[in-house]
Amino acid sequence: MPESSGLDYRSAGVDLDAAERAKEGLKSLVASTRDEHTLSALGQFGGLYAVPGNVDDPVLVSSADGAGTKLKVAFLAGRHDTVGQDLVNHCVDDILVQGARPLFFLDYLACGTMDEEVVAEVVGGVAKACKQNGCSLLGGETAQMPEFYAAGEYDLAGFIVGIVERDRILDGSSARAGDVLIGLASSGLHTNGYTLARKIAFDSMGLSVDDQFPGSGRSVADVLLDIHRSYLPILSDALDSRKVRGLAHITGGGIPGNLPRTLGSELGAVVDLASWDVPDVFRVLGDAGGVEKDEMLRVFNMGVGMIVVVAPEDVDAVLEGVNGPECPAWVMGQVEARAGIRWG
Amino acid sequence: MPESSGLDYRSAGVDLDAAERAKEGLKSLVASTRDEHTLSALGQFGGLYAVPGNVDDPVLVSSADGAGTKLKVAFLAGRHDTVGQDLVNHCVDDILVQGARPLFFLDYLACGTMDEEVVAEVVGGVAKACKQNGCSLLGGETAQMPEFYAAGEYDLAGFIVGIVERDRILDGSSARAGDVLIGLASSGLHTNGYTLARKIAFDSMGLSVDDQFPGSGRSVADVLLDIHRSYLPILSDALDSRKVRGLAHITGGGIPGNLPRTLGSELGAVVDLASWDVPDVFRVLGDAGGVEKDEMLRVFNMGVGMIVVVAPEDVDAVLEGVNGPECPAWVMGQVEARAGIRWG
Repeated sequence: MPESSGLDYRSAGVDLDAAERAKEGLKSLVASTRDEHTLSALGQFGGLYAVPGNVDDPVLVSSADGAGTKLKVAFLAGRHDTVGQDLVNHCVDDILVQGARPLFFLDYLACGTMDEEVVAEVVGGVAKACKQNGCSLLGGETAQMPEFYAAGEYDLAGFIVGIVERDRILDGSSARAGDVLIGLASSGLHTNGYTLARKIAFDSMGLSVDDQFPGSGRSVADVLLDIHRSYLPILSDALDSRKVRGLAHITGGGIPGNLPRTLGSELGAVVDLASWDVPDVFRVLGDAGGVEKDEMLRVFNMGVGMIVVVAPEDVDAVLEGVNGPECPAWVMGQVEARAGIRWG
Repeated sequence: MPESSGLDYRSAGVDLDAAERAKEGLKSLVASTRDEHTLSALGQFGGLYAVPGNVDDPVLVSSADGAGTKLKVAFLAGRHDTVGQDLVNHCVDDILVQGARPLFFLDYLACGTMDEEVVAEVVGGVAKACKQNGCSLLGGETAQMPEFYAAGEYDLAGFIVGIVERDRILDGSSARAGDVLIGLASSGLHTNGYTLARKIAFDSMGLSVDDQFPGSGRSVADVLLDIHRSYLPILSDALDSRKVRGLAHITGGGIPGNLPRTLGSELGAVVDLASWDVPDVFRVLGDAGGVEKDEMLRVFNMGVGMIVVVAPEDVDAVLEGVNGPECPAWVMGQVEARAGIRWG
């Protein structure tokens, strides 16, 4: 067989040169997230991060997550700079509930064909959020997987490592009956319920990403791509003050799926559904899809992104510290001596 | 709209109950990988891992990787228990080259529909390899993403965190001209070049997974699913002895893409291609695909999974320690004072 008719990796669908160029383009983004503990540069096999010396009995807290089907909205809108922020903030919130502050993050981006601009936008979002959260983007993998992903599509996952003093871990054992639940507003759907939300918005309601989302004065793309909020800056002082007895990040499974994880097996809670106005986006989707209320509460955050468990005597101090115009906080319920979530 | 005609998450393609059941089924697998530093159980938001106290100046080494298109062979063969081992071993090798031993691992498994048995097989492979490498499977994410993945298909990525004493980091600065390269045999294609390998095996050669792979006496599935080798047990003593000046994990990019990363920018190497017999699988694929030799060397490991850089006076001791019937080791070249890889 003459050599010119032979196969190579590129004709098989994998472009190593494009991968190298994409990697080069990411170096400055990644570099912008470095801190004094970051010892490695992009391109080494593994990322290096020195364990901070100011923690007496350091425990690492780690979590993996994916951006989920919110990505499909990004594909439709052709907007790739927000999903990385969603992912990082989601991961930051996931370890924050155990009392941990982020150290570093790694991303996994898999696509069918390597579009260098899209890769740069996606990883740019990852790097932006890493910087905002004081988290080093230590590395990652950008995989070309022809036959796995449709043209223009990709999957995005991430992995975070944070640190907490062993005696300050929030492990669900500190809550007591009578403790108060403080709700922190979400910034939209965050990263959950998108398979259902898209079905309702694009199929049942027949909307396209550029249409106005009913009642919002904003486009469907804008509403559905609102960035998952990081609660790290909001809760940092409250955690330092040791007034937080538990945190629940309201992700897949909603309040009933996540709040019990911070209460332990003996305790439950009553949640006052009248204590906050469910944001319009959830009302519109629920009505248009004819989704039962229990299902809405299990699939969506319904306007509550994080729940803080505090002792009754600390409610005022914590509320004052966390409540703000951008992220309202309110008393939304109470811990009870019997397991399960009751709607009050 | 009557409630019975309303939408729910399950009809939209996401089965939260199946996800919960799959998670329950994984608990014992994950538990089997715990060690004395593992503080958390599956189901908490983040995994907890105490920083080992026996390291004076601990540096964390982290890496992300995907199983890549080797997964397509697993799909064709209906064999899902090996790809998790490939992924873990690949990640272990990636941080080993910086001198790090694994602490913990997290996986990301994304599928279109949740097949609990497949999930258990995949994560079972992850857990098995974690156990073999003394690495705690600290958590992970199993994502249901309808519309992203074809029926019966999934993507699998992983993240590893290891630890190394700061003064024992292998960072590519220790190699010297005149140092000797020791090659360690690969156990097949490892996890690289599968897009090309599949194209040749299934298209050019017209093989199916159950056919015999020419000259091997084994099936195509067996040959192409050979598990990526972990070099941790093989190299552990050599690393302890401080006789290793550098390591190169031969992954995507082959020897020319990976060996330079452990030599720094000033040095290069001469590699004696006659020093080992390229395994039949590479010869068969290269011939059938009419792939040029340079391309073969850039895409595949060609039988070399890891290269060890040692001082001339340590060659005998290191060779004796690492060479074995399962993983032959041999002198394959030398470090040179000028950058670049030369074939000798």
